[in-house]
Amino acid sequence: MNKNAEAILLVEDNPDDAELTKLALARHGLDGRVTHVSDGMQALDYLYRRDGFADRPGGNPVLVLLDLKMPLLDGIGVLKEIKGSDTLHNIPVVVLTSSTEPSDLQRAYEAGTNAYIAKPTEFAQFLSAMKHVCEFWININQTAPQSPSAGVRSTSFGDLH
Amino acid sequence: MNKNAEAILLVEDNPDDAELTKLALARHGLDGRVTHVSDGMQALDYLYRRDGFADRPGGNPVLVLLDLKMPLLDGIGVLKEIKGSDTLHNIPVVVLTSSTEPSDLQRAYEAGTNAYIAKPTEFAQFLSAMKHVCEFWININQTAPQSPSAGVRSTSFGDLH
Repeated sequence: MNKNAEAILLVEDNPDDAELTKLALARHGLDGRVTHVSDGMQALDYLYRRDGFADRPGGNPVLVLLDLKMPLLDGIGVLKEIKGSDTLHNIPVVVLTSSTEPSDLQRAYEAGTNAYIAKPTEFAQFLSAMKHVCEFWININQTAPQSPSAGVRSTSFGDLH
Repeated sequence: MNKNAEAILLVEDNPDDAELTKLALARHGLDGRVTHVSDGMQALDYLYRRDGFADRPGGNPVLVLLDLKMPLLDGIGVLKEIKGSDTLHNIPVVVLTSSTEPSDLQRAYEAGTNAYIAKPTEFAQFLSAMKHVCEFWININQTAPQSPSAGVRSTSFGDLH
């Protein structure tokens, strides 16, 4: 287990869904190890250490849990940026969405997601799914080694002043 | 759960390791749903339905469990072929290896693996890891939709007669 690493970056615009997911992850040992951002641009700011996240501690998260439907920059846009980035592309991303549309599955895999979860609507099933996410992605999966400069990018989209 | 799909393609050259992995997967509900091949070329023959696998039933596997060190074509070569293929690149691949070398982790992620497991040497821990693999990749993860021609390729490396 990567005990010293940042654990999970949760990218979710719905406050209730975010609370529910954080609650489920806390029950499986990740209390205090989840960072929540509310849209795709904030997710990239966090990963690239821009703007409000310029001084954040820690390296890359062990896992990004990514909603698809979000304002500003949606999940597919975030996926394309992460998987096309020299410094971020090895970070595991699991899409976590209410959509079971084949077109969303297709677009998410084409954009390079590592895995895709259709959120169960029943709470007990959702808790169970999050348990399996933690067991596999936090306890079993080995992430790629990070270079000291991982996640740092000198240019940024909106911070040129 | 993708009950009607092929479950797991296990690519492992060591017969003892293959038996152990099949045993562990059978204990977690995958008895009879694992296909085992012994090297990287056989893995591609299976996925592309070539040679001895031209008439195999079923579609793409839900998961490829892939050893790294193998004769003929090693795991990194298989990964590059799968992730570079129009018809195969959406198949989830989990590297399952005894290596914890950072260079192997790096090469596996660069070649597009979805996840990476360093095999625990203790049997109880190995069983537990395989349980978590099944729970996440077989029961929770949603795979991309397959086109009717998925996995079929008209040309092949070694079957031109």
